[in-house]
Amino acid sequence: MLRLSDIVAQLGGELVGDDTEIRQVATLEAAKPDELAFLANPKYRKQLDETQAAAVVLGQQSRDLTQRPRILAANPYLYFAQVSALLNPPRMPAAGVHPTAWVAPDARLAPGVSIGPHASVGQGAILGANVVIEAGCRVGEGVEIGDDSRLYPNVVIYHDCLLGQRVVVHANAVIGSDGFGNAWTGEGWYKIPQIGRVRIGNDVEIGSSTTIDRGALGDTVIEDGVRLDNQIQIAHNVHIGRHTAMAGCVGVAGSTRIGAYCTFGGSAMILGHLEIADRVNIMAGTLIGKSILKAGTYVGQYPVQSHEDWLANASHLRRLDAMAKRLKELERKVGRNDANTGESTS
Amino acid sequence: MLRLSDIVAQLGGELVGDDTEIRQVATLEAAKPDELAFLANPKYRKQLDETQAAAVVLGQQSRDLTQRPRILAANPYLYFAQVSALLNPPRMPAAGVHPTAWVAPDARLAPGVSIGPHASVGQGAILGANVVIEAGCRVGEGVEIGDDSRLYPNVVIYHDCLLGQRVVVHANAVIGSDGFGNAWTGEGWYKIPQIGRVRIGNDVEIGSSTTIDRGALGDTVIEDGVRLDNQIQIAHNVHIGRHTAMAGCVGVAGSTRIGAYCTFGGSAMILGHLEIADRVNIMAGTLIGKSILKAGTYVGQYPVQSHEDWLANASHLRRLDAMAKRLKELERKVGRNDANTGESTS
Amino acid sequence: MLRLSDIVAQLGGELVGDDTEIRQVATLEAAKPDELAFLANPKYRKQLDETQAAAVVLGQQSRDLTQRPRILAANPYLYFAQVSALLNPPRMPAAGVHPTAWVAPDARLAPGVSIGPHASVGQGAILGANVVIEAGCRVGEGVEIGDDSRLYPNVVIYHDCLLGQRVVVHANAVIGSDGFGNAWTGEGWYKIPQIGRVRIGNDVEIGSSTTIDRGALGDTVIEDGVRLDNQIQIAHNVHIGRHTAMAGCVGVAGSTRIGAYCTFGGSAMILGHLEIADRVNIMAGTLIGKSILKAGTYVGQYPVQSHEDWLANASHLRRLDAMAKRLKELERKVGRNDANTGESTS
Repeated sequence: MLRLSDIVAQLGGELVGDDTEIRQVATLEAAKPDELAFLANPKYRKQLDETQAAAVVLGQQSRDLTQRPRILAANPYLYFAQVSALLNPPRMPAAGVHPTAWVAPDARLAPGVSIGPHASVGQGAILGANVVIEAGCRVGEGVEIGDDSRLYPNVVIYHDCLLGQRVVVHANAVIGSDGFGNAWTGEGWYKIPQIGRVRIGNDVEIGSSTTIDRGALGDTVIEDGVRLDNQIQIAHNVHIGRHTAMAGCVGVAGSTRIGAYCTFGGSAMILGHLEIADRVNIMAGTLIGKSILKAGTYVGQYPVQSHEDWLANASHLRRLDAMAKRLKELERKVGRNDANTGESTS
Repeated sequence: MLRLSDIVAQLGGELVGDDTEIRQVATLEAAKPDELAFLANPKYRKQLDETQAAAVVLGQQSRDLTQRPRILAANPYLYFAQVSALLNPPRMPAAGVHPTAWVAPDARLAPGVSIGPHASVGQGAILGANVVIEAGCRVGEGVEIGDDSRLYPNVVIYHDCLLGQRVVVHANAVIGSDGFGNAWTGEGWYKIPQIGRVRIGNDVEIGSSTTIDRGALGDTVIEDGVRLDNQIQIAHNVHIGRHTAMAGCVGVAGSTRIGAYCTFGGSAMILGHLEIADRVNIMAGTLIGKSILKAGTYVGQYPVQSHEDWLANASHLRRLDAMAKRLKELERKVGRNDANTGESTS
Repeated sequence: MLRLSDIVAQLGGELVGDDTEIRQVATLEAAKPDELAFLANPKYRKQLDETQAAAVVLGQQSRDLTQRPRILAANPYLYFAQVSALLNPPRMPAAGVHPTAWVAPDARLAPGVSIGPHASVGQGAILGANVVIEAGCRVGEGVEIGDDSRLYPNVVIYHDCLLGQRVVVHANAVIGSDGFGNAWTGEGWYKIPQIGRVRIGNDVEIGSSTTIDRGALGDTVIEDGVRLDNQIQIAHNVHIGRHTAMAGCVGVAGSTRIGAYCTFGGSAMILGHLEIADRVNIMAGTLIGKSILKAGTYVGQYPVQSHEDWLANASHLRRLDAMAKRLKELERKVGRNDANTGESTS
């Protein structure tokens, strides 16, 4: 249980109303009478009227939307997350090496390191203070992991990769597998040795089953504060700028350089050898085939229809060039009013 | 070997012709003279004429399509699957805890449980009768798994998740990893604790490398009988109704609620905070960006062409609005016969 | 360090200029004064002028583009890869079974086999000479793996699958999980036993977190020399011809037969029961819904725009059939010059 005044003492904000106690955080809709909820988006205001929550977090401008005990905060969503973190600290396994784990004799483990069941740590690896390596992980030879980082179960880090501080990697992710480099011999594929590494900055979180390949020559780089969701594929020699976030199932092909503060919707696919500027937002399902040099929001999504309607419409895409020519021919015959079309190139 | 009359005694159906013995099931095309094949789709009738199969399963209406020994069944494909299950029961590892496995002292294992090499079971976990945990799996603290469920190798279940009875999870799948929840601080991403669980019903099958995130607040829910293929990503707080089936590589973003009896083709992508009604079929590769409140089949696939033709046609998509305006202008000049267009809104 | 003359003695090519020594390979841009770079694409010629490299590999026709020590080779990129392989042989773990591994008593291990920490090898498995099974892998019952193959950590091979010689499988890949086969009972899904295997030829490389399902009846087949990148999903009974290469995140649905020497761009999706001819190239993000019987390059990518422009244009896709009809009607009224349209079918 936390008292609202204790929360405000730690996190700031203004307490309005009774200094009640809360046990947990919840949504407005699901909150029980000993829970704290939040209102970040005015469109959920009706839920505010109906909530059972003991108290709510909301913006200054929403001060009078409720009479419940409340905390006013500049960014209610962030504040709520911070309260949740106070109430729900991550479970930390005990420090020490589990009896079923295997650690190479020359690996260096700082104080507070925890190695779980059946994990193994290769020769020359260096683990910082309080690093947690959970069950079944493999930390390759020469890997370095900074203080307070955590690998969830069955993560694999290939040899010589570098992870910063407070990096979190979720289950079954792979960091440092060989990039997809093949030269054609005339008869088959010849594997190009992948001799770079993966370098990951501080405060990065990587989702489950995400894969990040090592560089072919030079390194694959993930800068500070990047957030990668699950099932993302990052190819060799990609560079991702700080605080960029990618939703699930995104793919980035080799040698593409992505700026800082970008966001990528789920299943977006970025081709190789491109440059994406800072503060670019790519919407879900969009395939990017050319560099994007200007901040903004970009999209290429095929609109959905009933199967019937799609059948009627989609086939015309295969003849769009012919339609454009027929339109031009008609305009030639009828006489065209260019001012109305907003188009000058065809 | 199974005699046809023994099969009919167990599964029903009508035996026509000799009561022969069969050793295995196979396709019409590949069947050897001691195997049972089936005809579900009349378009394979030619294969029926040419098959070497000892016997076939087919529908009542196909009774006289062959003179071979045969079993008539209402649903030949299902019947065939049931015969295959009789002939090919899953391999069950011996009950007991492998000497290399590690089980927390306070975990509760019902009779018949099998724990494979290098698997580990966390504190307070509860495993029902005959549960099979294969090599390298990690069952987190407080996880509960119902009777007769099976985890194939290297599956990871995070703490406190619940799996029903007869649930099958294939290799390297992850259940209960943190959802992708981040609040922007103005300078970087602040992680939102993911304090919900994953709750999975009975008779669910989950493919290899599929990932299902735990809820942010509240739970991610997979109802009874759901089938998820490989490499699927289910985000936090998604709810999937009973008997819905998804093919490989589908992604579902956070808080989307999917009905019962739906099907999703491979690589479909469903955005977050949507509602999908019961009995909706989404075709492969389709991105769903709005709720679908009516049963039916929906699609948004870009048609394929040769590279040359695609280059000629696709660029016009970027000018479709201009084309529409030019068309309207022409109609204004020429005079338009609305009755022929089937369109009234533009 | 390698002397250029030693390289030429091993790999062929013509040495021009000083017989210098090189320590490592690098790009023209990043090369240090003791490194070897290469020029394969004339568009990087400017980098050739500015490089610090000790020597370069280039084509005969580029002989005089630089005065540096150089090796002339028919295929500079391939030659460079071969030099890299000389300088960077894969790290080989010591032969023998790690004390934490578990190998079934009746498994057969040829000389030189290496089994890493916490790996397990099931009953009746047969491992060829110098096979490397890294940490945490599971090799199922009856699996056979040919000489000089290597499984990186946490790979899972289900029972009875066959891998050829010199096969490389990257971390967390899964080979032989059950295909997605379900028959509808009228009330729910009935699992169809998946009784085939996966058969993989020689010289195949498989990326991290790629999944290849076993056949339902009959086998899933990957022929010699195939290259699969990360996070690829290959469904049951797919057949992939020799030397075909697929980039990351590709999906291939059940029973599709793909020819030899094909290439697939990232995130391409191939539906089931199709036939793809030899030497077909599918571009990234393309969904293939029909068989392709002729070699060539095929594509179906939605073009990207700013969000604003996309909103203006994409909605017309839903009315393209109506637009086509309006265009036809206008042509009827105005009189159409068919010769100009390149179109005759509508």
